[in-house]
Amino acid sequence: MNPYADELIFSDVLFTFKKGDHMKADLIIKDVYVFNAYFKKFIYGDVSILNGRFLYIGKDCHEKISARKIIQGNKKYLIPGLIDIHMHIESSMTTPTNFANAVIKNGVTTVVADPHEIANVFGIEGIKAMINSDRQHIMDIFYGIPSSVPSTSAKIETTGGQIGIKEVSELIKNDRIWCIGEVMNFKDLVYSEDSLINNIIKLIKKEKPHFKIEGHCPKISGLDLARYIYQGVDADHTQQTPKSIEEKILNGMFLEIQEKSMTEENMEYLISNDLYEHFCFVTDDTMADKLITSHLNGLVKKAIGMGMKPEMAVYASTFIPARRMNFYDRGSIAPGKIADFILLDDLKSFSINEVYKNGQLACKDIGGKKEHEFPDHFYKSIKMNPVSDSDFSVKAPVKEGKVKCRIMKVQSDSTFTKEESDFVEVKDQRLSFETSKYALITVFNRYDNTKKRSYGLVSGSIIERGAVASSYAHDHHNLMVMGRNTEDMKVAANWVIKNNGGYCAALDGKVVASLALPVGGILSEEPIESIALNLKEVRMALKELGYKHNNEIMSFSTLSLPVSPELKITDKGLIRVNTQEIVSLFCE
Amino acid sequence: MNPYADELIFSDVLFTFKKGDHMKADLIIKDVYVFNAYFKKFIYGDVSILNGRFLYIGKDCHEKISARKIIQGNKKYLIPGLIDIHMHIESSMTTPTNFANAVIKNGVTTVVADPHEIANVFGIEGIKAMINSDRQHIMDIFYGIPSSVPSTSAKIETTGGQIGIKEVSELIKNDRIWCIGEVMNFKDLVYSEDSLINNIIKLIKKEKPHFKIEGHCPKISGLDLARYIYQGVDADHTQQTPKSIEEKILNGMFLEIQEKSMTEENMEYLISNDLYEHFCFVTDDTMADKLITSHLNGLVKKAIGMGMKPEMAVYASTFIPARRMNFYDRGSIAPGKIADFILLDDLKSFSINEVYKNGQLACKDIGGKKEHEFPDHFYKSIKMNPVSDSDFSVKAPVKEGKVKCRIMKVQSDSTFTKEESDFVEVKDQRLSFETSKYALITVFNRYDNTKKRSYGLVSGSIIERGAVASSYAHDHHNLMVMGRNTEDMKVAANWVIKNNGGYCAALDGKVVASLALPVGGILSEEPIESIALNLKEVRMALKELGYKHNNEIMSFSTLSLPVSPELKITDKGLIRVNTQEIVSLFCE
Repeated sequence: MNPYADELIFSDVLFTFKKGDHMKADLIIKDVYVFNAYFKKFIYGDVSILNGRFLYIGKDCHEKISARKIIQGNKKYLIPGLIDIHMHIESSMTTPTNFANAVIKNGVTTVVADPHEIANVFGIEGIKAMINSDRQHIMDIFYGIPSSVPSTSAKIETTGGQIGIKEVSELIKNDRIWCIGEVMNFKDLVYSEDSLINNIIKLIKKEKPHFKIEGHCPKISGLDLARYIYQGVDADHTQQTPKSIEEKILNGMFLEIQEKSMTEENMEYLISNDLYEHFCFVTDDTMADKLITSHLNGLVKKAIGMGMKPEMAVYASTFIPARRMNFYDRGSIAPGKIADFILLDDLKSFSINEVYKNGQLACKDIGGKKEHEFPDHFYKSIKMNPVSDSDFSVKAPVKEGKVKCRIMKVQSDSTFTKEESDFVEVKDQRLSFETSKYALITVFNRYDNTKKRSYGLVSGSIIERGAVASSYAHDHHNLMVMGRNTEDMKVAANWVIKNNGGYCAALDGKVVASLALPVGGILSEEPIESIALNLKEVRMALKELGYKHNNEIMSFSTLSLPVSPELKITDKGLIRVNTQEIVSLFCE
Repeated sequence: MNPYADELIFSDVLFTFKKGDHMKADLIIKDVYVFNAYFKKFIYGDVSILNGRFLYIGKDCHEKISARKIIQGNKKYLIPGLIDIHMHIESSMTTPTNFANAVIKNGVTTVVADPHEIANVFGIEGIKAMINSDRQHIMDIFYGIPSSVPSTSAKIETTGGQIGIKEVSELIKNDRIWCIGEVMNFKDLVYSEDSLINNIIKLIKKEKPHFKIEGHCPKISGLDLARYIYQGVDADHTQQTPKSIEEKILNGMFLEIQEKSMTEENMEYLISNDLYEHFCFVTDDTMADKLITSHLNGLVKKAIGMGMKPEMAVYASTFIPARRMNFYDRGSIAPGKIADFILLDDLKSFSINEVYKNGQLACKDIGGKKEHEFPDHFYKSIKMNPVSDSDFSVKAPVKEGKVKCRIMKVQSDSTFTKEESDFVEVKDQRLSFETSKYALITVFNRYDNTKKRSYGLVSGSIIERGAVASSYAHDHHNLMVMGRNTEDMKVAANWVIKNNGGYCAALDGKVVASLALPVGGILSEEPIESIALNLKEVRMALKELGYKHNNEIMSFSTLSLPVSPELKITDKGLIRVNTQEIVSLFCE
């Protein structure tokens, strides 16, 4: 319009001031320090809310607005609800509903979840079931589309589903789908223009140009990093160093900082270079026993403790993640924004007094025995009859004597394994692992009833006695059993089969600790506290059995991950990761 | 994925470094100071481009990449192409093609245009014709959907089209449509939930949640501002003060700063409060005679001259407008971004050496006589036969003597008018305006051939002799004629009719200056230089005839704008703006 049109509404204003007075709101919170994300500071005043969204914010709220309800804020700090834009609910082995109940009290009001694990078990149906399972909507859960399901191919691992172009095209029509989950296959992305991931990106650029495409590019730098970003992936949530932070942000990447990246030098670098527009805090994976203590709020508290100004720690967990994910309707305390907010008793200690969602005090679990939240067959996903001794009897290429075998050597501080080899005794053409230095590991295809299985031998800081079995085995989530004797392996495996999935440790023919994961063999609908307790018992049991690792559960669950070097095992066999070939247990 | 998955790509990296070396690019620009928007600083190095997008940026470009073409940058400054997210091409009375040719050399590579004027003349067909008219694509022109067409209603003004829900629903399917243009009707937005604008916003929130909704809210503050933003409009480009800047940004608004808002105190406020994340520079309206000298680059240069760090002035005209409009593919020099950039000889003086679009030296007009770029009937849009003396002979309610008339008093420094009244002589039942202190103003409905027209009398610092006529009359663009005598009014009006639209000044029965606007009566396909020249001649002629105003063209063209106080005139009659009623020329 013409440059003078500015004046044209003047008459309206005079007119509206008369009307303005009679404004009614649902709620006014008086006398609070309100976080203003735009000036990055707290401003003392009142906040009014209408229909679940903020209306007017200012010192003179009550003069301008009458409210149905007025709350005295007593100088508490009012900040937006926390927003976690990169995390996986399945990592907590709980359901969206119970996850929401667990984290809402920590002030987390919005998450973007990447349902990567359930997609491996049930494909697109698993993702839809996750979305539909939550009927309480205590918080807002949006979803990214897992972009690497399966992690390799049907030749290397058997999964219950895969996510291809057809699935992506269908999923983007769902209004809870918000982005493309972490792109992990660097090779496919950078070296093959016609790979699935590049076709997914092409589809997204055309159909959903505003969708963000999340990345996963540890240790990628230089020209490789440029080419990774060039393909359209512009975020990373993996472990950083000051050098990687500098290079990635210089190249236009948005960084999602998880706890392990919150090192002294990284925080110092982010703060001193004033990079607050280019990073946020995320949780990624939180195991159940950790989840019951804290979530994203723990990272905010930690950041403040490490010297980040509270205003900026809040900024990095509310306004910035909201902007990154195009959540225009939240992330700040301003007119029209959804009234998701936290009242803090104290800023430095980040002690939460109350959490509000959509302008209402966040409700806790409606309680009572819930019916199942997933389709019936999700509870019968371990398609196997009980195993027997014969399932752990490995036929050797010789009748008697010794045979040279490949060994997976577990490291105590990572999920890497080393490939080694050694001679193992053979009796009556059977590998006598029970008398060897090695544990037997078996992966059963749990998606059909063919009992198809593979065998391997494991050394390193693993269990010295008994057995452990789990259907929570990255990423394919087949049934994986590792043990020192057939009896305990059988007991552990059969417990998992009988319970339609879970984690089990056995010794002397008895179950010593267990966690049932009946939903797809990876989730439990029990309260998070009981999942945490059982998980902790399994963890303790593994230590008892001699497992030495900073995360025994993670260590075992990733022996099956065929994209994590060096020698891993799937239902198809031993996988040499770097070359992606299936290798025999027996060396030539 | 599991927390250790970071390591999983490690093997890839080793592998890819070997490959990386053989990378080929189309172009490398060596030895330039590259603007990095993320660290807000210039970094010396090389830039490589592949398929129109930036690839690798760094000091060791040539070591890593071989290029078909290498340009020696000689320490020039390399910055992104300028992005103007709020402007109106029609204000320059030129076509998209000629506009692009005019501004590309000023470094403007992307604009978001609000085709408000042509929508008033042709409705949705006008918008589509604007989009389709540009066949050279010298730069990227995206469009906002004009949200207030007509500015009032068919009762108050006759337009050639209107934009309703149906039109919006169709337009959002077009991939050149990028946002909702400035929302101007404060009353409809805030006081009537079911108004057209609120229904448009509801539709957008549902169908295009990532669309930005641009605002226009001068002098709105307090609760009114909160309610305006609450409805979903979160940007403003009107004239600001430090107080309005503070209040609007505090409330979550994004500010588009145009030249008239670049006052010393506003710039000082933006700079000292470090508000660079919340504003950008825009041109809004640029008349042809101004356009040939500079465009957005002029504002950047001015900002630097006013003390803004060059880095931040560039930031506010490239990275920030791109982010505001969700142009993820441009606005910075980083891998994957479209290679739109400027090479500057000097930063402080912002002297442009070369402009590149999509990695190619921006081509100038392909020249030669172009065929028409719009549908045939766009060139015959003044649907009127020549006017005659009788069309300017106003019947009075009395036979002889004097009659009390309403007078539009023009102000010399704004588009406001004052409503006054005075007695004017009547002879033979005809208003003898020629002998009065007043000019006669007549607005003809130019959309049908009914010769329907309205009359008014004008005082103030307007022409003292001759006449002026134009079909560029905000917003309805009917044929408006103002003059001191019938003969000159007839000559001026008939010139405009004969030329299918334009601007014409006449004296002593002769045309003294004219500008033909044959496209819809508002645009010319002639080179911008000739439009500028003719416009300047008309401007000079109006001065010659006694018109005193800081922008005579704008002053005259807005006497017809029924949303700009106080008394205006449309083809329907004299409009009292504040009450939106049609009032008679003759007072009771």
